[in-house]
Amino acid sequence: MPSYVAPTKDMQFILHEVLEVTASDVPGYDELEADFTSAVLEEAGKLASDVLAPLNAVGDTEGCRLENGVVRTPTGFKEAFEQLKAGGWTGLDCDPEYGGQGMPYLLGTAVGEVFVAANMAFNMYAGLTHGAYSAIHTHGTDQQKATYLPKMVSCDWTGTMNLTEPHCGTDLGLMRTKAEPQDDGSFKITGQKIFISAGDHDMSENVIHLVLAKIPGGPAGIKGVSLFIVPKFMVGEDQKLGERNAVSVGKIEEKMGIHGNSTCVMNYDGATGYLLGEEHKGMRAMFTMMNEARLGVGLQGYAQAEAAYQNAVIYANDRLQGRDVTGTKNPDGPADPLIVHPDIRRSLMDQKSFVEGARAFTFWGASLIDRVHRSGDTQADGLISLLTPVIKGFQTDKGFDAAVAAQQVYGGHGYIEEWGMSQFARDARITMIYEGANGVQALDLVGRKLAQDGGKHVMAFFDLIKSFIKENEGDARMAEFLGPLKAASKDLQAAAMYFMAQGVKNPNNALAGSYDFMHLFGHTALGFMWARMAKAAFAALDGGASDAEFYETKIATGRYYMTRQLPATAMHLARINSGAEPVMALKAANF
Amino acid sequence: MPSYVAPTKDMQFILHEVLEVTASDVPGYDELEADFTSAVLEEAGKLASDVLAPLNAVGDTEGCRLENGVVRTPTGFKEAFEQLKAGGWTGLDCDPEYGGQGMPYLLGTAVGEVFVAANMAFNMYAGLTHGAYSAIHTHGTDQQKATYLPKMVSCDWTGTMNLTEPHCGTDLGLMRTKAEPQDDGSFKITGQKIFISAGDHDMSENVIHLVLAKIPGGPAGIKGVSLFIVPKFMVGEDQKLGERNAVSVGKIEEKMGIHGNSTCVMNYDGATGYLLGEEHKGMRAMFTMMNEARLGVGLQGYAQAEAAYQNAVIYANDRLQGRDVTGTKNPDGPADPLIVHPDIRRSLMDQKSFVEGARAFTFWGASLIDRVHRSGDTQADGLISLLTPVIKGFQTDKGFDAAVAAQQVYGGHGYIEEWGMSQFARDARITMIYEGANGVQALDLVGRKLAQDGGKHVMAFFDLIKSFIKENEGDARMAEFLGPLKAASKDLQAAAMYFMAQGVKNPNNALAGSYDFMHLFGHTALGFMWARMAKAAFAALDGGASDAEFYETKIATGRYYMTRQLPATAMHLARINSGAEPVMALKAANF
Repeated sequence: MPSYVAPTKDMQFILHEVLEVTASDVPGYDELEADFTSAVLEEAGKLASDVLAPLNAVGDTEGCRLENGVVRTPTGFKEAFEQLKAGGWTGLDCDPEYGGQGMPYLLGTAVGEVFVAANMAFNMYAGLTHGAYSAIHTHGTDQQKATYLPKMVSCDWTGTMNLTEPHCGTDLGLMRTKAEPQDDGSFKITGQKIFISAGDHDMSENVIHLVLAKIPGGPAGIKGVSLFIVPKFMVGEDQKLGERNAVSVGKIEEKMGIHGNSTCVMNYDGATGYLLGEEHKGMRAMFTMMNEARLGVGLQGYAQAEAAYQNAVIYANDRLQGRDVTGTKNPDGPADPLIVHPDIRRSLMDQKSFVEGARAFTFWGASLIDRVHRSGDTQADGLISLLTPVIKGFQTDKGFDAAVAAQQVYGGHGYIEEWGMSQFARDARITMIYEGANGVQALDLVGRKLAQDGGKHVMAFFDLIKSFIKENEGDARMAEFLGPLKAASKDLQAAAMYFMAQGVKNPNNALAGSYDFMHLFGHTALGFMWARMAKAAFAALDGGASDAEFYETKIATGRYYMTRQLPATAMHLARINSGAEPVMALKAANF
Repeated sequence: MPSYVAPTKDMQFILHEVLEVTASDVPGYDELEADFTSAVLEEAGKLASDVLAPLNAVGDTEGCRLENGVVRTPTGFKEAFEQLKAGGWTGLDCDPEYGGQGMPYLLGTAVGEVFVAANMAFNMYAGLTHGAYSAIHTHGTDQQKATYLPKMVSCDWTGTMNLTEPHCGTDLGLMRTKAEPQDDGSFKITGQKIFISAGDHDMSENVIHLVLAKIPGGPAGIKGVSLFIVPKFMVGEDQKLGERNAVSVGKIEEKMGIHGNSTCVMNYDGATGYLLGEEHKGMRAMFTMMNEARLGVGLQGYAQAEAAYQNAVIYANDRLQGRDVTGTKNPDGPADPLIVHPDIRRSLMDQKSFVEGARAFTFWGASLIDRVHRSGDTQADGLISLLTPVIKGFQTDKGFDAAVAAQQVYGGHGYIEEWGMSQFARDARITMIYEGANGVQALDLVGRKLAQDGGKHVMAFFDLIKSFIKENEGDARMAEFLGPLKAASKDLQAAAMYFMAQGVKNPNNALAGSYDFMHLFGHTALGFMWARMAKAAFAALDGGASDAEFYETKIATGRYYMTRQLPATAMHLARINSGAEPVMALKAANF
């Protein structure tokens, strides 16, 4: 069975040596002293290794069951959920006014990676609750906040997000669920929602559903969608639970993975709901949480890769098969361990250099979100809006690929469920789909974010890279990082220029290259992260760091990314430059 | 539930317009008249669409069960197997002396694609039998052939291949199963074999296991391995079944996919076996079938992609979501079909251009195998030995990617098992692993095949491309195919040169680039196939073909491959040229 150990040292390196959080002017970051974050991450790591990781396979094998209308979670989930709550983990970055600990989102993100890597399906119950908490916290009335948030921060009540219907996912304007106004100001919600993660279960007293629906008579399409709070059990004064609301589980979906999470069809049969935010502004309310939600999914992508990678390394060191062609490494054994073989190394280096780069990118993204929320920084807001589809789309694609590569290290055993490597790949697969399928991320990036505010956010991104190169080109050791970064950044700019020049003639010239652009952007961003990490590592070595090997390993891993991954940018640019014609050439009937 | 229709028109195009089989001098190809192959493929297509495809999901959902030592296959498998046998499909390309129909391997390959695409797990029962048939046919004594082959050709008895043990897969020299000689010339086989596909089941009277084992006292390692025939039930005169042999099923493995096939742990407890071929030459006996077996897995890779692609196209035409940015295409509907969107097209074109290129490559490979077996052509033998790891490794990697991409077209529904798209991805996943994991294919290609016979086979491949370019460069329409093909071929040659120059200094310089080389080779080969297909399509259009749209679609699909896929070759070359250093830099402890 797979194991998991939190990569706290690597996280500390990013927080304190790359992002230098305590030197930041973001309010609250002064609390993130190295000793403190280390203690938090170590404690999270214990819960992850000892409790959550061992339940990962249990959740996969047992799945959730619907019994007489009640969803039963897998053996051990309820007890683990109690431990998560008792440790105060669910409210780590929540508002102290409602019982949260008020920590920065960045720290919540680091802890989130640890829990997600150990058991993604389990962590979704708290993760969805956090999303619903954010929506109510941002858009709720004082009374709504007082009514729902304290119990949601503690996860005594959990939350869900209800968007998709059988006939519409991406195109929510087609939605049919309706919300009829009642005399008392509430609404009667009627319709069917599908793919509702954590839709119902036996680990909390109540479930607070956030439901998108249309108020009859409102604008057509997406502009007529409103957001509603629909509790499973009605909530009275002092948060006392009342009668059951008219919402029920239609069925639990059989999925490729994340079996431990109950993905429900939810039926609303005139259920009582309360408007959250303004009428017909439901999508706007959803969008304010979208950066966080999508960053969270981008995190899931590389977190599954991290967990899979850790186990692939163990197996590659244990499994004896073949001999090192340059000379036997294990003369007393019947064969050498897999890790002597160059192609196994290639695969492990692909995985490692991706995961560490993605972690840095995600943490940087989380720090931008803190900057938005805690400093009201509008530049950071524009930048993270631009980067979000890249974090989500690129990292989940590559995270899945890395999990598949880790599974491959096991040979035939990787295909047998007992070894647990298949689960990482199957669980990671959903991250490419939910919270906006990756093609939609690419569309969001190229069709919306790239040109937003006159393109100033992508210019800001290029400027960051340009400044970094300029600041560091005096250090000869940095040349092998700055050269490839410059080349990648140039390819990315050329692609953006192509879209501007050719997209005017035909928007499909931009959209046909959107997916490649997302990947070109992702590689450039991770190249930037690796250059920053290399700089920090060189600085540590110059400062006589005691653990020189850690920093040398960091530099070597970054060097691998620059030489072996960044050549992809030229390929993506070439594809982009071929425009819409080859992509759109066929009649639909000729596919 | 997914559907499947055999792509007979595309197959006919490759057989008759690209490979021009009836004009070939290979004995037996004169029988492959277009009307005949068309009738065979249509008939296979009916069985596939009506019987096998509907059972694909059944096999996945039910899986195989071990009941009191007997393996039960999923509902409907036995009846379908009887239909397969009754149609004479199992012996299509087998020796008429033993009841086969003596058709070329190429035709067997085309029919094989149809069955594999419809139901891969089901087809493995006959597929493994065919492999065991080939081994006995090539290495068996006359008596062994007379005893086993007639019933195996008809699939009254099925076959298996027993190589892997718990501690060894790739490195079979570590094998522990032993074969003790008996006075009567037989052997007692004792040991445990794992991952035995079709190891046992309820669809045949007998199972003929081919088992690798070591005769005590023989040479150490791989040179002391012999091959044995071990029947489940002893076979007497006139093929009468006798008592049960001492071989039993330990368990059925729970796998990620191909649930309809029984993957067994087989226990041999002093089972009676008969030497097949020479003592200690078991690996050589296996190797003679390896090209066919690996080509068969390379076929599985793109066949799963074909089946997944067909369903993605249907969904993309049916599902209404969003509007075409260049103008509404379905004004009477609530939204346009998915297929209007450029990124959906990109994905479908990726799938389509890969599948059709891989089909041509595989059929060409099958024709080379016919040339070896029917004409004793040693050049063809060298060439197919070189191409085999590319067909297996590249096509299964890309086939899996394509199945995942097809699943992605379904959005959230792709993740729900009910829709069947997950199964294509899960089933395709095994093709990257079995019959030699893809890293081993890359090692075989670069470490063995590339330099074989002084490198003359790879030179022959380059010469084929060079001649083709020379012959066709007078046709201006071919320029957009020949240019990219030339560039890809140049990259491939540069990579081979790098290996020669740098591999001498350190073999790891070659091995660290082996995986990229396999992909670089695969893209070049598919580019070559597309250039050949384009030539044939232009010729058909010049000849006034009635179905001009078919040929125009073919040319447009090829153009897509050249412009959007071949840019990958430069990336692979850049990675290869970075050599072993970045790949091997870390100590094993620092991963």
